[in-house]
Amino acid sequence: MYSEVKNTGSANESSFHTTLLFSVNDRVGILDECLTAIKALNISLTRIESRPSRTPGWDYDFFVDFSADEEQLSNAIKSLEKITKQVKVISTGATQVTLAMPWFPRRKTDLDTFADKVLEMGEELDADHPGALDPDYRARRAEITRIAKTHRHGQPIPKVEYTEQEIKTWGAVFRSLKKLYSSHACREHQLVFPLLEKNCGYGEDNIPQLEEVSNFLKDYTGFTLRPVMGLLTSRDFLNGLAFRVFHSTQYIRHHSKPHYTPEPDVCHELLGHVPLFCDPDFADFSQEIGLASLGASDSDIEKLSTGNDIRAYGAGLLSSFGELEYALTDKPEKRPFEPYKTSEQKYIVTEYQPIYFVAESFKDAQQKVRDFSNSLERPFSVRYNPYTESIEVLDTQEKILRYAQSIKSDMVTMVNALERL
Amino acid sequence: MYSEVKNTGSANESSFHTTLLFSVNDRVGILDECLTAIKALNISLTRIESRPSRTPGWDYDFFVDFSADEEQLSNAIKSLEKITKQVKVISTGATQVTLAMPWFPRRKTDLDTFADKVLEMGEELDADHPGALDPDYRARRAEITRIAKTHRHGQPIPKVEYTEQEIKTWGAVFRSLKKLYSSHACREHQLVFPLLEKNCGYGEDNIPQLEEVSNFLKDYTGFTLRPVMGLLTSRDFLNGLAFRVFHSTQYIRHHSKPHYTPEPDVCHELLGHVPLFCDPDFADFSQEIGLASLGASDSDIEKLSTGNDIRAYGAGLLSSFGELEYALTDKPEKRPFEPYKTSEQKYIVTEYQPIYFVAESFKDAQQKVRDFSNSLERPFSVRYNPYTESIEVLDTQEKILRYAQSIKSDMVTMVNALERL
Amino acid sequence: MYSEVKNTGSANESSFHTTLLFSVNDRVGILDECLTAIKALNISLTRIESRPSRTPGWDYDFFVDFSADEEQLSNAIKSLEKITKQVKVISTGATQVTLAMPWFPRRKTDLDTFADKVLEMGEELDADHPGALDPDYRARRAEITRIAKTHRHGQPIPKVEYTEQEIKTWGAVFRSLKKLYSSHACREHQLVFPLLEKNCGYGEDNIPQLEEVSNFLKDYTGFTLRPVMGLLTSRDFLNGLAFRVFHSTQYIRHHSKPHYTPEPDVCHELLGHVPLFCDPDFADFSQEIGLASLGASDSDIEKLSTGNDIRAYGAGLLSSFGELEYALTDKPEKRPFEPYKTSEQKYIVTEYQPIYFVAESFKDAQQKVRDFSNSLERPFSVRYNPYTESIEVLDTQEKILRYAQSIKSDMVTMVNALERL
Amino acid sequence: MYSEVKNTGSANESSFHTTLLFSVNDRVGILDECLTAIKALNISLTRIESRPSRTPGWDYDFFVDFSADEEQLSNAIKSLEKITKQVKVISTGATQVTLAMPWFPRRKTDLDTFADKVLEMGEELDADHPGALDPDYRARRAEITRIAKTHRHGQPIPKVEYTEQEIKTWGAVFRSLKKLYSSHACREHQLVFPLLEKNCGYGEDNIPQLEEVSNFLKDYTGFTLRPVMGLLTSRDFLNGLAFRVFHSTQYIRHHSKPHYTPEPDVCHELLGHVPLFCDPDFADFSQEIGLASLGASDSDIEKLSTGNDIRAYGAGLLSSFGELEYALTDKPEKRPFEPYKTSEQKYIVTEYQPIYFVAESFKDAQQKVRDFSNSLERPFSVRYNPYTESIEVLDTQEKILRYAQSIKSDMVTMVNALERL
Repeated sequence: MYSEVKNTGSANESSFHTTLLFSVNDRVGILDECLTAIKALNISLTRIESRPSRTPGWDYDFFVDFSADEEQLSNAIKSLEKITKQVKVISTGATQVTLAMPWFPRRKTDLDTFADKVLEMGEELDADHPGALDPDYRARRAEITRIAKTHRHGQPIPKVEYTEQEIKTWGAVFRSLKKLYSSHACREHQLVFPLLEKNCGYGEDNIPQLEEVSNFLKDYTGFTLRPVMGLLTSRDFLNGLAFRVFHSTQYIRHHSKPHYTPEPDVCHELLGHVPLFCDPDFADFSQEIGLASLGASDSDIEKLSTGNDIRAYGAGLLSSFGELEYALTDKPEKRPFEPYKTSEQKYIVTEYQPIYFVAESFKDAQQKVRDFSNSLERPFSVRYNPYTESIEVLDTQEKILRYAQSIKSDMVTMVNALERL
Repeated sequence: MYSEVKNTGSANESSFHTTLLFSVNDRVGILDECLTAIKALNISLTRIESRPSRTPGWDYDFFVDFSADEEQLSNAIKSLEKITKQVKVISTGATQVTLAMPWFPRRKTDLDTFADKVLEMGEELDADHPGALDPDYRARRAEITRIAKTHRHGQPIPKVEYTEQEIKTWGAVFRSLKKLYSSHACREHQLVFPLLEKNCGYGEDNIPQLEEVSNFLKDYTGFTLRPVMGLLTSRDFLNGLAFRVFHSTQYIRHHSKPHYTPEPDVCHELLGHVPLFCDPDFADFSQEIGLASLGASDSDIEKLSTGNDIRAYGAGLLSSFGELEYALTDKPEKRPFEPYKTSEQKYIVTEYQPIYFVAESFKDAQQKVRDFSNSLERPFSVRYNPYTESIEVLDTQEKILRYAQSIKSDMVTMVNALERL
Repeated sequence: MYSEVKNTGSANESSFHTTLLFSVNDRVGILDECLTAIKALNISLTRIESRPSRTPGWDYDFFVDFSADEEQLSNAIKSLEKITKQVKVISTGATQVTLAMPWFPRRKTDLDTFADKVLEMGEELDADHPGALDPDYRARRAEITRIAKTHRHGQPIPKVEYTEQEIKTWGAVFRSLKKLYSSHACREHQLVFPLLEKNCGYGEDNIPQLEEVSNFLKDYTGFTLRPVMGLLTSRDFLNGLAFRVFHSTQYIRHHSKPHYTPEPDVCHELLGHVPLFCDPDFADFSQEIGLASLGASDSDIEKLSTGNDIRAYGAGLLSSFGELEYALTDKPEKRPFEPYKTSEQKYIVTEYQPIYFVAESFKDAQQKVRDFSNSLERPFSVRYNPYTESIEVLDTQEKILRYAQSIKSDMVTMVNALERL
Repeated sequence: MYSEVKNTGSANESSFHTTLLFSVNDRVGILDECLTAIKALNISLTRIESRPSRTPGWDYDFFVDFSADEEQLSNAIKSLEKITKQVKVISTGATQVTLAMPWFPRRKTDLDTFADKVLEMGEELDADHPGALDPDYRARRAEITRIAKTHRHGQPIPKVEYTEQEIKTWGAVFRSLKKLYSSHACREHQLVFPLLEKNCGYGEDNIPQLEEVSNFLKDYTGFTLRPVMGLLTSRDFLNGLAFRVFHSTQYIRHHSKPHYTPEPDVCHELLGHVPLFCDPDFADFSQEIGLASLGASDSDIEKLSTGNDIRAYGAGLLSSFGELEYALTDKPEKRPFEPYKTSEQKYIVTEYQPIYFVAESFKDAQQKVRDFSNSLERPFSVRYNPYTESIEVLDTQEKILRYAQSIKSDMVTMVNALERL
């Protein structure tokens, strides 16, 4: 069961997310007793989950998510240990609690917490940003990013009425790229692009709406888009991919330089990333990176992030006329995609890249990420349960058995299908 | 890609659902040419899907769903054969088109078509229904069933403000059943019931809202509820289960007889069925029956339906004080659950049953349904893709390969988890 | 490691096979200490196996097989408990040791112990046996069964020089059956029979040698033949199938009645059973029954045995002119093959059967046996390791993990093959 | 079915192994007709296999192995094409037949053909070999290698009565290595070594017999030894590993230099390789390299061979006092094991190596070989069937289905075992 608990306690500057797990024996009123004890902690609870336990001898499992500082966390553990002997810190931002892992979202709704955690807000622009000195442009971005700030899982993404000027900027990018695609893009891209035109309003005179594109992707590969205020941390961005969620900006680059942007914008997202997410293998590969990022150490996040950057370069390439032209020359070096290797290579985001990594196929790349993932120090494996839209931590025999049973079922169906072919 | 096409043509009495599949080679304008040809058919299109083909040598696959009579279908096929040589009737209600199977929903949104296809409307009551002569009761049902009629996939289920009298009826059922549960229900039920009380408003003084219960189930096992006007055909009801959708009534039995109802009502659904759907094995088992029902012959539907009735009896039992008391005596015969065998046994719905079928476990029952399913004459196997919320027909080597690849990936993760245990 | 220890101690009438398992920590001389302790038991050891332990904290696992009576077994356990705290009785014939299972062979070489454990010796004939009063026939059988008595795993099966009279008896059976096959046998049989003629000396004028037939089968499906003195117990016979070993008589029926035999003889084995063992699905099915029989309770053995009898009837049918003719009429009832069900049905071996069980396919029958097997009360599952020709008891997480790893490897290869198709 | 046909035709200098596959329809006498046609080819047939075909419409599949020159092969194909339209060259040594792959053994018995195909015969010694000028030593080697020359699959390996001088040489190596092991070998090695002493006669005063060691290994991991005359080609040596066969020399280094040998000898095999083959993961890893080598191109063989050399260095190290001491210093570079990468590195066999490759585990190394294998250009995948001791080429849907069915069966058993844990 799942209770969203909004700000029942006090959170402050030194707070961090923590997830506790504990189990209790069934006795009259135990459920109430636990909820009371948790609420008495006076901490900023974000969720309480309780479910019938499958551990023999324990009757309910509780997952408690909250924001607290080190002292509050310590008190909470002491307090709960009066009710049960088994309190386990699953993940936390606290640095002193050594056994736990960095916090990670376990349900799709948890992604709501990313809404205003951005490295760079959409409205704060670097001095060298083409729109830095344009107050109208900055006001417009603030207006659009408000959508991302208030958007919640399950709601439709609000429509943005783009201005004529914005549509003109998009049109300029669209035209030049479409021309280049027609001669240079791979067959998959050439086939999927007309469908985006027919179904999602891709065109010279129209900026597609995230909601429409998201629904289209959902039908194709199960990916969905979420509006975002600006640049997320690598960890948050990658964590989103684990849920087949791609965080996408909704605002557009400055009209003064339609062929240049120092950061992702709606052109980059819709022309660069989205066509790739129509490919089922690319979708699987992206989710794989996401799953590997959950609870990973900072240095592993950095490695995965570079792996993902390579992934992103596809998008960067596809949405940048200049770089796409450059990549098609013989100048940059091409190397095989190796998550381990590439992760030691740093890139300067605003320059054309001297090296491109080439995977034989997305399936191949997915396998490599999975191998990398299995080599991580994370003490358990995770799987995504698409029915409940949640991450399952495979840390008990019972959960692994359930997984094995579902694989067996799939195997039976697959063999049956093969028999009927 | 997915275009919902609303009533572009004429449908009439003798119309039936049909799904055509055809593939075309890529050439300039082919996408437009096809859409034009399809629209020119002047039939009631319900959906056009086109996607890059994976069949070597063909570039786009089209799925076209429409309502048409035999003549219109025949014309449509002829017309399309001018564009492509390969037109395949996937499923149809037409009796003369022998190779196709009965139509079945392929996307979760297709369940919207069931909205007003009910055997018995909520407002039309049999003469012996306790509320048959109560015009206020009938008007109230009509009011509530309107919700089901207009509800569409993806929208929240509207809240019903139940009257004091309705809540009193619910309260009477709730009290007597809760008492019985506390002594006779299985451990799983006893653990899950308090959670329903804490989280979904189950209680003597409150009729839970479908939306809340549906969200709770979604978190637990991925099942969701859909409001329904009245009794669906067996085929439609079972087809819904394939998508982990349980069609639930929202109105309540007549206040004159709180302990009796000749048909499912909100007490039956929420007290009988819902607790079972919290069990992951029961959820898997129910979906398995659903998947077996897709495109099945009428006689196989009947067999599955009896299999499902047994499933339903659990619910019938749990929500009927009288029958539950009866079942706990030695009077009725208990037999092992065997889909083949039970399907020859007929029941009269309004009487207590003389025989109860007992499965060792839901996992066991699921396996039996799967075995039964594999013995069906259906020429292909199906799987449900929870990411795209659609049914995949496993009729080509490419699709089976993709399935096998995903099983392999799961296997790798599972073994990795086992290694870390 | 594996030491065959021949009669180092005393075995007597009340002796039975027992297998003990214990683990010891590595310390200087521990291996010697254990072997000394075991030898000091003065019991009839049949095997000592020791191998590096995979249980954390224990360094060697010992499997000790021996024959002993209840008292000796009790002393052995006490004595070993001085060296290690963990002595586990894996399987035993002792009735007082309640936790253990009936003894079963764990290595192919263990089948050597069946050599002289036959219910009816080849030379002891019932009064109504056609050869009961023929001293020459009985002497000849004694001569032939001596081969079975001394044969050991790994040795070639000695050739029998059949007499002219014996060849004539075989010829009579061969001729009449071959005629019937040509019109009634299934396609598989019709295709395999000419190969047996070409390769194994099947023919009117020659009785094939077990060694040649065994080598042929080994190439085809991995089954091999072992000569046997007479009728084995059901348990022993079925246990043999777990190793893909079929125990076959080498002597022939009495010449006075070439078309009748009250017990299996070389005609029955070679004409009835062997062609079936050329079918890979039948081979898998037979081994499945064998694996289910290992350590099974007496009542489960009885059920499996009836299941196997049905299997055997195929052979009985194929090698009996009269019954085959009878079966092809409409007189006997045909029922679907259900291991549970059929096992309640008893047969009189020497009469034509009134009921025949019909499996849709051997694959189907194999699945049913596996389901039955999984419902047995045996506390663990077993697998056969064809590389080491031994049974692995899947009772620890480590062994299951190893199994899962090998399945994963197979899955990777299979998907790779599918990708290249 | 399987007919070994010995030298029915003429083979000459320019001959090479070829395997043809063809299928014929069943009609009266077709089996005879084919055999006659094949024999009429007057080529050196080594094997004819025929079995009921599973290809719809064809009734028998024939595999024909023979030695022939280009002209004879061409005639054979023409001649067979009169009987059937489908003659397929599976593998051949002929350079003009472009579609076929290099010949590879498909049955364990095929390894018999390697007996006298050695790069360097045991008796021909390089000038700098310590025994080059010792005629007694060379005569002794000739005597011992005769065993390898005449040994055939299925026979026990003849015992060598080693001389006192030979035992002394062995003893010197044994003593110095045992001392080093006790301090430096890994735990697995330390546990397995006492077992070799107890069970296979490893000791200062005794050279173990290949037969005993082979039987011991068979029980442990299913590996077996085969005596070999001298150095096999990389291809032949690796091909043997696919069958879990390790080709081992039986002669010993020259007594003048007990701590040095320029080539493998019985000390190197038994002290270096054999302990590793007791590890199930190492055994799997070695077979994996073997399977990858079947029909591989010469350049892929070279890569695998280097991969295998690394594997071999373990053995080289373990059996060479000097190199083991050297390796344990900090002087040589240690690199992670990467089949791709390492394969570009060449080694001089007779010097201590400057680089050692370190795999995290044999399971890890196995996975890397499998990945490498899947990247080979070989048009199909292969699996080893341990029941029939033969290689199955996974080139039809039917064979893959059968494989998938067996994986499914394993999966069912594994999940069942997990359920009972």
